[in-house]
Amino acid sequence: TPLEDAMNTLIRIFHHYSGKEGDRYKLSKAELKELLTSELTDFLSGQNDPLLVDKIMKDLDSNKDNEVDFNEFMTLVAALTVACNDFFEEQLKEEGF
Amino acid sequence: TPLEDAMNTLIRIFHHYSGKEGDRYKLSKAELKELLTSELTDFLSGQNDPLLVDKIMKDLDSNKDNEVDFNEFMTLVAALTVACNDFFEEQLKEEGF
Repeated sequence: TPLEDAMNTLIRIFHHYSGKEGDRYKLSKAELKELLTSELTDFLSGQNDPLLVDKIMKDLDSNKDNEVDFNEFMTLVAALTVACNDFFEEQLKEEGF
Repeated sequence: TPLEDAMNTLIRIFHHYSGKEGDRYKLSKAELKELLTSELTDFLSGQNDPLLVDKIMKDLDSNKDNEVDFNEFMTLVAALTVACNDFFEEQLKEEGF
């Protein structure tokens, strides 16, 4: 189903980047940066903050090991998706739905 | 990108069901049940608990309004995806990766 496909995609993307170096099941800062710049081009295109990746890493890395595990990654995806949805609902409401 | 597509899919699926009755931006219990049984067939196929949907609803509905908003829905998707990922990582480790 599309929902199960979407969940599989999230798992696949995470491991595509997390497997590149160091702990195979966690994203280093370099891996996180590569994932964000390659996979969230629309989201990052309006951003000029060179410290953005550092900030995101700091926010996500709740256990302070300087790596982002899958759980922490899903927190980011959930927050971004909620932000996109807020924008989407706002637009629907403006259009009178 | 595939990540942005996955996020769009989550938003689209939620609104497909949430728009059916009552508050257009929230899932009623009937809508949640329809979403789970239609979109998570693999996940639910092993489950025989008739109260499962009630339990999920109760767990998700953190603001106790008997409806699930998009934020609460993303909590479920994140938890399920983390569970799938745990299983996936376990299998990889067993295979020696």
